[in-house]
Amino acid sequence: MATKLYNPVSLIRRKRDGEALDHEEITYMIREYSADRLPDYQMSAFLMAAFLKGMDDSEASALTKAMLHSGRVLDLSDLPGTKVDKHSTGGVGDKLSLILAPVVASYGIPVPMISGRGLGHTGGTLDKLESIPGFTVDLSLERYRSVLSACHVVMAGQTEEIAPADKRIYALRDVTATVESIPLIAGSIMSKKLAEGIDALVLDVKFGSGAFMKSREEAQRLAETLVGIGEDFGKETVAYLTDMNQPLGYKIGNWLEVEEAMEALQGNGPADVMEVTHTLAGTMIALGGRANSIEEGMAMSCEAVNNGQAFEKWLELSREQGGDTSVLKDFSKYRQAKHRLAFEAEESGYLSEMDAYRIGMASLELGAGRKTKEDAVDPRAGIKLHHKVGARLQKGDLLATGFTSDRGLLEAARDHLGKAFKISEEQPGQDPLVTHRIDREGVHAIKE
Amino acid sequence: MATKLYNPVSLIRRKRDGEALDHEEITYMIREYSADRLPDYQMSAFLMAAFLKGMDDSEASALTKAMLHSGRVLDLSDLPGTKVDKHSTGGVGDKLSLILAPVVASYGIPVPMISGRGLGHTGGTLDKLESIPGFTVDLSLERYRSVLSACHVVMAGQTEEIAPADKRIYALRDVTATVESIPLIAGSIMSKKLAEGIDALVLDVKFGSGAFMKSREEAQRLAETLVGIGEDFGKETVAYLTDMNQPLGYKIGNWLEVEEAMEALQGNGPADVMEVTHTLAGTMIALGGRANSIEEGMAMSCEAVNNGQAFEKWLELSREQGGDTSVLKDFSKYRQAKHRLAFEAEESGYLSEMDAYRIGMASLELGAGRKTKEDAVDPRAGIKLHHKVGARLQKGDLLATGFTSDRGLLEAARDHLGKAFKISEEQPGQDPLVTHRIDREGVHAIKE
Repeated sequence: MATKLYNPVSLIRRKRDGEALDHEEITYMIREYSADRLPDYQMSAFLMAAFLKGMDDSEASALTKAMLHSGRVLDLSDLPGTKVDKHSTGGVGDKLSLILAPVVASYGIPVPMISGRGLGHTGGTLDKLESIPGFTVDLSLERYRSVLSACHVVMAGQTEEIAPADKRIYALRDVTATVESIPLIAGSIMSKKLAEGIDALVLDVKFGSGAFMKSREEAQRLAETLVGIGEDFGKETVAYLTDMNQPLGYKIGNWLEVEEAMEALQGNGPADVMEVTHTLAGTMIALGGRANSIEEGMAMSCEAVNNGQAFEKWLELSREQGGDTSVLKDFSKYRQAKHRLAFEAEESGYLSEMDAYRIGMASLELGAGRKTKEDAVDPRAGIKLHHKVGARLQKGDLLATGFTSDRGLLEAARDHLGKAFKISEEQPGQDPLVTHRIDREGVHAIKE
Repeated sequence: MATKLYNPVSLIRRKRDGEALDHEEITYMIREYSADRLPDYQMSAFLMAAFLKGMDDSEASALTKAMLHSGRVLDLSDLPGTKVDKHSTGGVGDKLSLILAPVVASYGIPVPMISGRGLGHTGGTLDKLESIPGFTVDLSLERYRSVLSACHVVMAGQTEEIAPADKRIYALRDVTATVESIPLIAGSIMSKKLAEGIDALVLDVKFGSGAFMKSREEAQRLAETLVGIGEDFGKETVAYLTDMNQPLGYKIGNWLEVEEAMEALQGNGPADVMEVTHTLAGTMIALGGRANSIEEGMAMSCEAVNNGQAFEKWLELSREQGGDTSVLKDFSKYRQAKHRLAFEAEESGYLSEMDAYRIGMASLELGAGRKTKEDAVDPRAGIKLHHKVGARLQKGDLLATGFTSDRGLLEAARDHLGKAFKISEEQPGQDPLVTHRIDREGVHAIKE
C-alpha cells in the first residue's frame, strides 16, 4: 500500500470538529506514533479530541487494527480446534478465568489466554496465578504454543511483542485523563485479544460500583462496540452484561481467590460465581463447536465441574506451568497471612448493599493490589466476606475478615470497609447477575 | 503564598468534564508548564479539553494572569500620563497602528506599543516598520523607556522576557489544533498587552473573510472576553467590532502599507482606513484623558492629521528608532519591486466582493508574508488594489497590481486573485465598517 501523506494537525482538527476519520487516517496516526514520528503532545491532543467527540464503529475498528498490527499477531491456525478466549472488563472477586478456562479446555477446546495484572481496585489474573508457588506466566512463544497444544489451555502474561502501540497509548491516556472512553477502551481490549490468535471470544462486560462502567447503559455501549469490532475481524464475539455492584463470591485477594476457584472446580463454588462461570463457559463451549447451543454448553460446564474433569485439567495446566499442586488440593499447606482484621455489623437488619468498589479498595489497601504499576502485591492479602446482599444479620455478626502481612495497613482497610456495607430494616430485592447477551444479532435481555 | 499540591491528571479530567477550575488551579498548570515540571503532552490534553469545553471569564483572567507573570511586567508608572495602546486581532491591509500611534502621541499621550510579525494571510506591524531602511524594533528595555519618554510613542518587538509561557503555549497550540479558542486567544493577547505597562487599551476585533473570527458573533464573544479580562486587571478597555471582508485601504504588503500610512498621515488616506483610525485613535485620546468624549477624541484625531502634527510625530519617532525619513517623505527614493502582475476585470459590472483572505494569500505568495515562522519577508512585495467594493467596472479594467522581487511567485498569486473578486450586475449594498463598541457597560451598536 502506498503511503499517503497526512498533516497530523489537520487530522487532530477534524477529530476535534467531530468528523470521522477514515481507516488510513487512523492508521497513519497510530503508525507514526509507534515509529516516534508523531510526538506525545499531538497524540494526547488527538486522544482528548477522540474522548470528547467520540469515534464511530469504523474508527474503533481501524484503531484496533492499527494497534494490533503494531506488534506480533500469533498464528495458531496449525493447532486443531476453534480457539476461544474470554475477557472480563475487570471487577472485584472476579476469579472466573481460573474456573472456566479448565472447564472449556477439558472438552478439548483450545483456550489461549493472555491476561493482565491488577490495577486500582480490581484484581488481575496474573497476580492470582503467581500466588500459586512455582506457577510461571512468563512463557516464550514456543512454550506458550507447546502448553496450549498439550493441555488445550495456557495462561500467560502479555509480552512486549503484543500490541506495543496499545501499551504506549494506554500509558499516555493514563496521564492525560483520557482513559474512560468507550472506543479507546474497546480498541485497547480487542487489539490485545486479537493478537492471541483466537477464533472466537466471549466478553464479560461488568457494570456497577466495582466495575469501570458504572451504569448498565455504558456497559452495553462498550459491549456493542467490542462485539462490533470482533465481528469486523471475522471472529465470532458474544458479550454478557453482568452485575458488579457486590463482589463475586466471598473471597477477594490473590491466593484467596485461587482458593475459591479451587473450591468451585471441586463443586463447592458460591452460587453467583457459578452462575456467571457457567454462562460464559457454556457460551465458549458452544462457540468452540462442542455444543449445539449455549444452554447445552452450560449443562456441559456444570458436568465438567461435577465429574471432576475441570479440576483435573487445572492441575494438569498448573503442573505444566510449574505450579505446586499440593497447595491447590490442601490449602492448609499454604502459609497464612500474619495479621487479621475482623469487621462486624454495627446494627441488626438486612445486608442491603455491599459496595464492590470499597471492598476492592480495602483489599488493595491490605496489599492485594497495586497503587502504581511498580508496586509488588502481597499474595496472602485480601478480604473474606461472610455474607452476601440479602442476608439477615444480628448486631456484632462478622461481615468481613481482612488478611495482610503488614499490620500497618489494617487501618486504611477498615476505613474503606466502614463505608462498604449498608444494613436496612427491609429485605432488599435481588438484582439479576447476568442481564443481557449481546451478539452480532443484537441485544438479548436475559433478566432485568 | 503557600504552594498547594495539585494532581495534573485530575485538573485535566475536571476541565474535560466541563468544570471550571479556580484561579490557583489554572496558575498551577501554567506555572508547572513554564518550569518544565508539566510535560507537553499533559498541557496539550488540557488545551484540547479547554478548547472543546470552554473556559469562563474567571478562568480566562486566571490564564492571562499566570501567563503575564511568567515573564517580566514593565512598570511605566514613573512616566507621566495615562499609557494607552491599541491591539488588532489582525487583518489584511491593516496599517492603522502606523497612523494612530503618532496621532495619539502627538497629544502627549504615551503609546507604548509592542507588536508582532505577520503569520499566514495577515500582516504584522514589525514587518512593516522594518521595511523602512534603518528602522529598528529590537530595543533594550532602557532604550524602550527612553524613546517613549522622548517621543510619547515607541514601537518595538516582543522580547523573550514578555509572557514566555504564552510563547510556549502558543507554539504548542499551533501544532495541536487548539488555536481558534476564544478564551485561549484572549489570554494570549491580554497577557502580552498587560506586560507592556499600559493603563488603558483599545481593541480592534475584526470579523469577516480576512479575519481570524469569520462571524461577527464570534468576534463579539472574543471582544467581550477581552474587555472582561482588561477590566478585571483594572485597565479601562474598549473594543470595536470592525469589518474585514475586504482589505483596509488599497495597499497590502509591508512597504506598500507604510506608503499608504504616510499618505494618510498627510491627509490623503482612504476613507475606510481613516474611519477606523479616527474611531480607535479618538477612543485612545479619550481614554488618555485628553478628550471628554470619544466624539471629541475623533475630532482631535482628524485635526492631528490635518494640521500635520501626527506626521511630524511619526518622523520624530522614525528618526529616534533609526529610520530613514527621506523615503517616508518621497517614495520615489525607495527601490521598487522588480516584477509586476496586472490583474484585470474579466467582465463588466459592479465589484460586489473582494475577498480579504484571498488577497492576503496573494500578497503572502508574492513574498510579503510568511508561511512558517522562519521565512524572511520581501519588503517590496504586495498588492495594490485599484477599486473598492461597489465600484462600477468595465471588462479589462485593472483590479489589482501585484509586486514581487521573485518572478516565480507570480503564478500562485494570480491563482488567489482569480478567486478574490466577484463582479455582479446589481450594485451591492454598503456594509458598515465599524459595527459595535464593547466596553464595561456592555455592547453598543454603532451601525449594523
